[in-house]
Amino acid sequence: MINIERLKRRMQAMAKIGKTERGGVTRLALSREDQEARQLFISWMEELGMKVRMDDVGNLYGRLEGKDPQAPVIMVGSHLDTVPKGGKFDGVLGVLGALEAVETLIKERVDHVHPIEVVSFTNEEGARFTPQMMGSGALTGVFTDNYVLNRADRDGLRFEDELRKIGFQGMRSHRSENISAFLELHIEQGPVLEAEQRSIGIVEGISGFYWMEVTILGQSDHSGSTPMSMRKDSLVTSSQIIQAIYQWALSRSDGTVATVGRIHTSPGIVNAVPGSTTFTVDIRHAKLEGLLECIQEVKQIIADLSYQNQMETFVEEIFTHHPVQFSPRVIDVIDRVCQEQQIPSMRMISGAGHDAMYLNRISDTAMIFVPSIDGKSHCEEEATSWEDIELGTRVLYETLCRLAK
Amino acid sequence: MINIERLKRRMQAMAKIGKTERGGVTRLALSREDQEARQLFISWMEELGMKVRMDDVGNLYGRLEGKDPQAPVIMVGSHLDTVPKGGKFDGVLGVLGALEAVETLIKERVDHVHPIEVVSFTNEEGARFTPQMMGSGALTGVFTDNYVLNRADRDGLRFEDELRKIGFQGMRSHRSENISAFLELHIEQGPVLEAEQRSIGIVEGISGFYWMEVTILGQSDHSGSTPMSMRKDSLVTSSQIIQAIYQWALSRSDGTVATVGRIHTSPGIVNAVPGSTTFTVDIRHAKLEGLLECIQEVKQIIADLSYQNQMETFVEEIFTHHPVQFSPRVIDVIDRVCQEQQIPSMRMISGAGHDAMYLNRISDTAMIFVPSIDGKSHCEEEATSWEDIELGTRVLYETLCRLAK
Repeated sequence: MINIERLKRRMQAMAKIGKTERGGVTRLALSREDQEARQLFISWMEELGMKVRMDDVGNLYGRLEGKDPQAPVIMVGSHLDTVPKGGKFDGVLGVLGALEAVETLIKERVDHVHPIEVVSFTNEEGARFTPQMMGSGALTGVFTDNYVLNRADRDGLRFEDELRKIGFQGMRSHRSENISAFLELHIEQGPVLEAEQRSIGIVEGISGFYWMEVTILGQSDHSGSTPMSMRKDSLVTSSQIIQAIYQWALSRSDGTVATVGRIHTSPGIVNAVPGSTTFTVDIRHAKLEGLLECIQEVKQIIADLSYQNQMETFVEEIFTHHPVQFSPRVIDVIDRVCQEQQIPSMRMISGAGHDAMYLNRISDTAMIFVPSIDGKSHCEEEATSWEDIELGTRVLYETLCRLAK
Repeated sequence: MINIERLKRRMQAMAKIGKTERGGVTRLALSREDQEARQLFISWMEELGMKVRMDDVGNLYGRLEGKDPQAPVIMVGSHLDTVPKGGKFDGVLGVLGALEAVETLIKERVDHVHPIEVVSFTNEEGARFTPQMMGSGALTGVFTDNYVLNRADRDGLRFEDELRKIGFQGMRSHRSENISAFLELHIEQGPVLEAEQRSIGIVEGISGFYWMEVTILGQSDHSGSTPMSMRKDSLVTSSQIIQAIYQWALSRSDGTVATVGRIHTSPGIVNAVPGSTTFTVDIRHAKLEGLLECIQEVKQIIADLSYQNQMETFVEEIFTHHPVQFSPRVIDVIDRVCQEQQIPSMRMISGAGHDAMYLNRISDTAMIFVPSIDGKSHCEEEATSWEDIELGTRVLYETLCRLAK
């Protein structure tokens, strides 16, 4: 059985590295805090007799051989970096939960054929170097080595230079190969499990998403000398569109979400009718056909309301990502574990991206979610109960044992 | 009769000072361009034999004595400064139109008892030094000398130092006193005269206005992992409020205007439900009771929609200005001139502030508006037809003659 006290101690030790005043953590990728966290993580893996190595983009692996060293790897892990003023659970739980599962497996002398690798991927958050999930993206061929190594942060510091500075650039040949399955335990970062009173989310996939920037062009006028009936107020039309998109998404019953997160007006002063308004729309859907349909419907809403209000419209795609569907084989194992152990669980789709999204390209992948209290994450209040962490880690452990056998 | 060609030549000469690439003007208060414009204006007044002086805040006066040097002054003018990338008409027309009226009066040897003063007020726009209408505000006691002289621009440069640098600080005793009437010719800066096909707006007063900053507080959540039904999206509620304020103002038939000009969300990123949204509301009404009623009604709209959506709300007053009612005596003179000369005119309220707003405190004041093409102002496209400028200047001249007799 996994030892929740041991895991809790490790989680608390890790939370001290980059600790913020209000109980959160700031541990940006390739910072001194990241360096310290990596050293601590390595020391724990070495204590367990795991063979530690790092690759050219700084991904850290701890390997426990199985009966057949040639058998494909079962990989389990997540990331140790955080956003600025982030929480103590996002990423860390997946790495230390994996370590706990392996320690339990060692202590209980569980037979396994497959080698097991615990992993911590570099720069999952993308808070210092964009884009997100850089380490797992490099490993799975989503990004070229050159692209990753030459990314720069806001101060112009290069990824590779910073990686060397903290002493964590290894060899390209150290990248993990021949991975048959990948498991990631993670906090939900949403309110669904808590609302449904389930301790485990069996993640079947990750929503696809589409980001666009919309500009509505009306006419700027003096706010004092332009009668209401003679205005072409781009913000009033934008408000109608924001309302309509919200109502549209709310009325769909297939988990579609749509969000306007950022907005600004021009000239953007108190005493001028906004001549133009620009806002972002983030649309997510679990299935590709659904996502494409949603994009069309939202664009239609924007076009219709702009036309009705005699506004011009420009829509620019910022970013798009296709939906990911995880491995039915791995999902089934997790589901069976939950049923046998009578742990309240539900199948769900992740609305956020994770390293598992890229690992899914080269291995049979699935994720295990545990509830986020009040749905909060990427903030200092981020929390999950230790009871749920224990259950989540137990499911991770049992699943790992079955996959590695 | 006034000479439109002469006025046009002066307007064009003035438009060269601070000329922008796209045919506008940038002539900020106390800049080198302002200095040059002042010098040109003074040279023209001196050619006409007017006695030129400047006061401690840089207001420029040109005096033409009447039969009774002790009689109260009839003042006429506006300002020579512009906003960045402003137009060729805002302010300049009132100053050079006044000069044209005086030149006509001299050339036609019109008898007048009262002394006439042409004026150009310092820093009407408030684009470099805030607040607006600083010169007329100092003259009329709205601002203390100390307040004005110590204002600083964004680079920390003091008003008084900059005024001295361009050589235009005169004596406090040079301020005009004993003013019986003030006339200001100005472009409308709105679309009403053009829409109504009138060449002259007889301005009865200036709307009062109230500016507030409203913050709607919901909850910030991850845009991917928070179902639509579990959100407290502050921007969605703000959009409802913006719609409701617009519809409310549109449905009033008393000239009320309400504008949301600036908006921003927090955290303000593509992939987060906006936890808080802050926007400004600018409400204007011609009458004080009307303005107070409007403020209450808008606050009620905000409170009701916030409550319905379970949002918290903070409302902060930024600025407020009571409505101004101009002199019925002067308004009647302008009206009679328009009728006698069969010039298409209408009575109206100015939605924008002007120097006349402050002069009204110490003298019988009114304004004459001419149409703005497409209602545009404070931009390089700002324009008025020369036909309308001729009519406006003619009305100014006739009104001045009658008031000065």
